[in-house]
Amino acid sequence: MHGIMKPDRKIMIISTASVAGREEEAGPLGGSFDLTDTKDDSFGMKTWEKAESEMQRLALGLALSKASLTDDDVGALFAGDLLNQCVGSNYGLSGYKIPYFGLYGACSTAAEGIMLSALTCDAMPVRAAAVTSSHYCAAERQFRYPLEYGGQRTPTAQWTVTGSGAFIVSSVEEDAEKRRGTRVPVITEWLPGYVVDRGITDVNNMGAAMAPAAADTIKRYFDGGHSPEEFDMIVTGDLGHEGSDILCELLLSERIDISKVHTDCGKLIYDAAAQDKHAGGSGCGCSAVVMAGHILRNICDGVLNSILFIGTGALMSPLALNQGSSIPGIGHLLHIKGEVL
Amino acid sequence: MHGIMKPDRKIMIISTASVAGREEEAGPLGGSFDLTDTKDDSFGMKTWEKAESEMQRLALGLALSKASLTDDDVGALFAGDLLNQCVGSNYGLSGYKIPYFGLYGACSTAAEGIMLSALTCDAMPVRAAAVTSSHYCAAERQFRYPLEYGGQRTPTAQWTVTGSGAFIVSSVEEDAEKRRGTRVPVITEWLPGYVVDRGITDVNNMGAAMAPAAADTIKRYFDGGHSPEEFDMIVTGDLGHEGSDILCELLLSERIDISKVHTDCGKLIYDAAAQDKHAGGSGCGCSAVVMAGHILRNICDGVLNSILFIGTGALMSPLALNQGSSIPGIGHLLHIKGEVL
Repeated sequence: MHGIMKPDRKIMIISTASVAGREEEAGPLGGSFDLTDTKDDSFGMKTWEKAESEMQRLALGLALSKASLTDDDVGALFAGDLLNQCVGSNYGLSGYKIPYFGLYGACSTAAEGIMLSALTCDAMPVRAAAVTSSHYCAAERQFRYPLEYGGQRTPTAQWTVTGSGAFIVSSVEEDAEKRRGTRVPVITEWLPGYVVDRGITDVNNMGAAMAPAAADTIKRYFDGGHSPEEFDMIVTGDLGHEGSDILCELLLSERIDISKVHTDCGKLIYDAAAQDKHAGGSGCGCSAVVMAGHILRNICDGVLNSILFIGTGALMSPLALNQGSSIPGIGHLLHIKGEVL
Repeated sequence: MHGIMKPDRKIMIISTASVAGREEEAGPLGGSFDLTDTKDDSFGMKTWEKAESEMQRLALGLALSKASLTDDDVGALFAGDLLNQCVGSNYGLSGYKIPYFGLYGACSTAAEGIMLSALTCDAMPVRAAAVTSSHYCAAERQFRYPLEYGGQRTPTAQWTVTGSGAFIVSSVEEDAEKRRGTRVPVITEWLPGYVVDRGITDVNNMGAAMAPAAADTIKRYFDGGHSPEEFDMIVTGDLGHEGSDILCELLLSERIDISKVHTDCGKLIYDAAAQDKHAGGSGCGCSAVVMAGHILRNICDGVLNSILFIGTGALMSPLALNQGSSIPGIGHLLHIKGEVL
């Protein structure tokens, strides 16, 4: 899988759901999320971690019910998040009786989960689900400071998205039959990433740490015979404003100009002028809710036709940084096309 | 994948490697590990976390070189560990240029990684690697107390294994050709687990938390038409002495008697009489080094013929337990047979 993977079967994203918080609801994509807690981001739970689990439970439940599916209809569940030991997923999804594969891909988890779902769907006619989440309050106290501390953020700092996205991927013929004549997002290619570490150590500049990994995967994809002009959109997961600029520059130095079609879920989710979010959104939930709520919907509606989605992740831990290590990044690429079945 | 999965291709475990610590070297399986640090478990590193990463780097390197493979020959790398954000794997394997899929399956990671490798190998002719690890000193300070604190352990407490195992799985025809006439472990079936939570909250009795999950998967497997008599060995990952007893009792109440062929990697790795390890070994490294070093070697040598391996994992975090949650468990089952190619 060092090269671009093309499935033998038709692999469709047959259902998605997005659950998000107050700040996300207030942003430019607010209207696109299925369910939001506009009160206090607690989703009725007593701790932020439990709120994050609850978001995942709700997101998968919604994605299943939108497609009129039950647990039995889905053969594999790929899920992970940023919390230590991925407890957002482990607890949030423990009520579902679906074979469970825990992932840790940091903020690339949505892309990793969709890719492994696609791989599973290529091996056999089956449905697989990918779920991930992040919660601003849980992430801040785990990775940086508890909110009560009131720590200042630097201009390159990003804002962890409170949100969860769920995706149901299918290669089941019956699902295609049911959707005849409708426009469905189809996963036509994928290219998994290598771990790339360029020596960035600033935990308040994750965009810079992840951009080289995204650039590496995108370059390998275009070296495989594609060009940026083929796509309506090349969207990265959560490089934010800072990381997006770095990505475009890195690729330009390789004579690949994606600037006309590039955007980033971390740039789209908040209003840079009206919301005090510095370098933009980040976290597992960032690309998950933007893809599930906004971009895949645009593909279904025909607003977008052919896109590249590169899920980006920073694979460090606070302890590793305290021990002097730099931040390894990863970028997993999916080519998704709107197709009238 | 709610039912037993049977691959279309022949899926071989073509190479394994095990790296372990001083206590593991001193145990009954000491002679079976490829590389051990009998001095101080540091593997030449300054921190326990970096030592754990180094074990993974060494294990994968050894597994590749035993099969005369380079990074380019392996299409996917599935890896994870117990450390927050899985930094054992992320840093240990960042030097390898192999498409990287981070996992979090707690102590079931070896089984999860081998299963996803098998799934990948079923989808296409390819090689995939699974790597995992744990380190006693890193795990104790993260999950319980720093060693310097000198906390007492209860009789049901297990001892996190210091070790890393790597497995190269292949469905490449050329690999079968090369091994014609030799005996190779072949993955003939697998059954992924559900998340099962029976309300155990004692972090010093992980065996009890994981046993119901293992029992659930094993019962589903035998409900699928198999019986315990078909197997030379039914080996669980790290239930230890306590959890193993619970597993056998749980299954007996379902009229399934595995007691004659059941053992557990956590029971095998230390000498219960001579080593002060209470309820036995645990951790991602436990099943990884026992499978890679001992059991799969016995399959190659013809000592064992047909086995079930059930990787067990406890999916909690210290924070989740502090917030009053119980411990969810998981058990992933693999049927592995020795086959003369």
